[in-house]
Amino acid sequence: MHIVITGAAGFLGQRLVARLLARGELQGQPIHRLTLIDQDEAPLPADPGEVDVESLAMDITEPGEIDIVLDARPRVIYHLAAVVSSAAEADLELGMRVNFDATRLLLEGCRERGLNTTRLVMASSVAAYGGELPAVLDDMTALQPQNSYGTQKAMCELLINDYSRRGLVDGCVLRLPTIIVRPGRPNAAASSFASSILREPLNGEEAVCPVPTELTMFVMSPGKVIEALVHAAEVAGETLAPFRAFMLPGITVSVAEMLETLRQVAGDEALARVRHERDPQVEAIVASWPARFETRRARELGFSGDRSLREIVEAFLDERG
Amino acid sequence: MHIVITGAAGFLGQRLVARLLARGELQGQPIHRLTLIDQDEAPLPADPGEVDVESLAMDITEPGEIDIVLDARPRVIYHLAAVVSSAAEADLELGMRVNFDATRLLLEGCRERGLNTTRLVMASSVAAYGGELPAVLDDMTALQPQNSYGTQKAMCELLINDYSRRGLVDGCVLRLPTIIVRPGRPNAAASSFASSILREPLNGEEAVCPVPTELTMFVMSPGKVIEALVHAAEVAGETLAPFRAFMLPGITVSVAEMLETLRQVAGDEALARVRHERDPQVEAIVASWPARFETRRARELGFSGDRSLREIVEAFLDERG
Ligand SMILES: NC(=O)c1ccc[n+]([C@@H]2O[C@H](COP(=O)([O-])OP(=O)(O)OC[C@H]3O[C@@H](n4cnc5c(N)ncnc54)[C@H](O)[C@@H]3O)[C@@H](O)[C@H]2O)c1
Ligand SMILES: NC(=O)c1ccc[n+]([C@@H]2O[C@H](COP(=O)([O-])OP(=O)(O)OC[C@H]3O[C@@H](n4cnc5c(N)ncnc54)[C@H](O)[C@@H]3O)[C@@H](O)[C@H]2O)c1
Repeated sequence: MHIVITGAAGFLGQRLVARLLARGELQGQPIHRLTLIDQDEAPLPADPGEVDVESLAMDITEPGEIDIVLDARPRVIYHLAAVVSSAAEADLELGMRVNFDATRLLLEGCRERGLNTTRLVMASSVAAYGGELPAVLDDMTALQPQNSYGTQKAMCELLINDYSRRGLVDGCVLRLPTIIVRPGRPNAAASSFASSILREPLNGEEAVCPVPTELTMFVMSPGKVIEALVHAAEVAGETLAPFRAFMLPGITVSVAEMLETLRQVAGDEALARVRHERDPQVEAIVASWPARFETRRARELGFSGDRSLREIVEAFLDERG
Repeated sequence: MHIVITGAAGFLGQRLVARLLARGELQGQPIHRLTLIDQDEAPLPADPGEVDVESLAMDITEPGEIDIVLDARPRVIYHLAAVVSSAAEADLELGMRVNFDATRLLLEGCRERGLNTTRLVMASSVAAYGGELPAVLDDMTALQPQNSYGTQKAMCELLINDYSRRGLVDGCVLRLPTIIVRPGRPNAAASSFASSILREPLNGEEAVCPVPTELTMFVMSPGKVIEALVHAAEVAGETLAPFRAFMLPGITVSVAEMLETLRQVAGDEALARVRHERDPQVEAIVASWPARFETRRARELGFSGDRSLREIVEAFLDERG
């Protein structure tokens, strides 16, 4: 079992590498080779065991660059390389090149080599939704993205579905909910506060909540996202028709529930570390993201979500140690 | 008012040229220039009046080819050039090049020249729908195309919407119902019979009906489609957000109703010219097309459909003379 991961130096890429090595097998076969691809060379894992891990610094938007990797006929490709929504919005050409054209190059590379049974797993996003959305979204809700990142992801979904339908590759695209609790520091993402208002107080630090507490979000823990990426490699291709992209089963939580969970887990003292200071810009962006989904497809395909916000927070504490 | 039409030698292109010349104005401004683009040089209209009409034989998939036309800063571009669904299915590369890449070249050409107020009108299709569809579709039904043509059209919709949202061009994409009654001869399209079972008997000829008479379709007359293309150039851009592609208000008709209308208009003799001979392949394709839509967006934007099947047939007879 040879697995390729693009964007392997990233947040999810690094966690996926660790999980795959810990697991040792995929699709019931021992993993013997792992190829990490990223423009920033991904660090080699400290303890790769029997697995032959190589890390290649590569710009996947360069035609032909990835061909040498595809020539080795990997069984599974995780395509996680992307530029985030703010970067794609700031630079249309960059976003189109990385988020769309690179996916097309990858699909063409698979087609040229007849990699028709290679499972291609890609990460799409809740940002692909937009427009006049219903109160509860489902698998047949239209993608009318209101940002270039979501547009590029939605185009990739269509293309991967069509290449898979034609039997040229065996694709599976997961639309990811907002991921909380991310470790590390706050960043420029509009969703950053959602991790921050839990993580910082739990670490004894101050955090700012920029949105009203009634606001709801659709969230998933990093652990469950990685579990879904593993499962996406193992779902039978036949079951993925007629459309190979769907939303993962996140859970709907309000900011008030997040704060109440913080209080339950770490007390009033921790809760008091959250300062409320509205930021209309952040509020507008986050409020435009749908928060309620009926994720029948994903559940039928065996994907599962977190059971509660409490579990998400406890998983973060466990991992932090 | 300078108007450009790609695919101007085609069925809709030729009718649009005639309608625009008959109208003489668009967006309240006199049309003074009309540029016809097609790989097969479009015939020059016999009586262009005051309008400066030029016809250019051009492959719009060649980068740079259309630039000289865009340099003239047209006010309206009708982008109708496409390869049909059977051709796009038979040749993925051809379909991607003509149906998707050429649209992207056009968008980039507009962007480079700052044609941000140029109205770009494109024709999408009912073929963009697919998958596990609800009984009645609406403006928020997902596009999960089950053919490459529909995939390419859906990708163009997303891209035109994003370029428009960014203020780089002023797009409007119409999803066209099945067009009946088309003049001419039967062709290879799966929908061909729908025109044939009316047109041939009305012309005193035999026709074959390959589907059960309960089968329903979503249809629009050529006249109403052309009217919609004209209206699409005149709808205010602000009203097109949040998504610039939508289904036109066709009407839902069963094959039985089509045959009954034929009988009412031309008698039992005409009806007897239709032979019933099932073709499971045609049936499978046509039955997969959605036939019931709630087209609120289009109606709110002032698009209108045919009032009845009877009117569609009478319009065909009027035109035939
Ligand atoms: N984390 C989330 O909340 C979230 C939510 C929805 C979707 N996603 C998607 O999941 C995937 C992984 O997300 P992440 O959080 O790990 O992102 P990340 O930004 O941490 O990682 C992306 C990686 O891609 C690499 N990359 C960018 N351009 C490249 C290029 N041209 N060539 C090679 N490598 C390139 C970057 O160097 C980076 O290491 C992305 O596709 C992202 O769009 C993430
Ligand atoms: N007629 C319908 O029932 C219907 C339904 C839905 C959508 N549409 C869409 O409406 C548009 C017009 O349809 P139509 O029925 O007039 O089609 P058509 O096939 O009659 O016309 C298309 C024209 O595009 C031209 N063309 C193809 N490739 C080209 C290239 N590389 N460079 C330049 N020109 C090229 C062809 O020569 C042809 O004249 C198309 O985009 C089609 O997909 C039509």
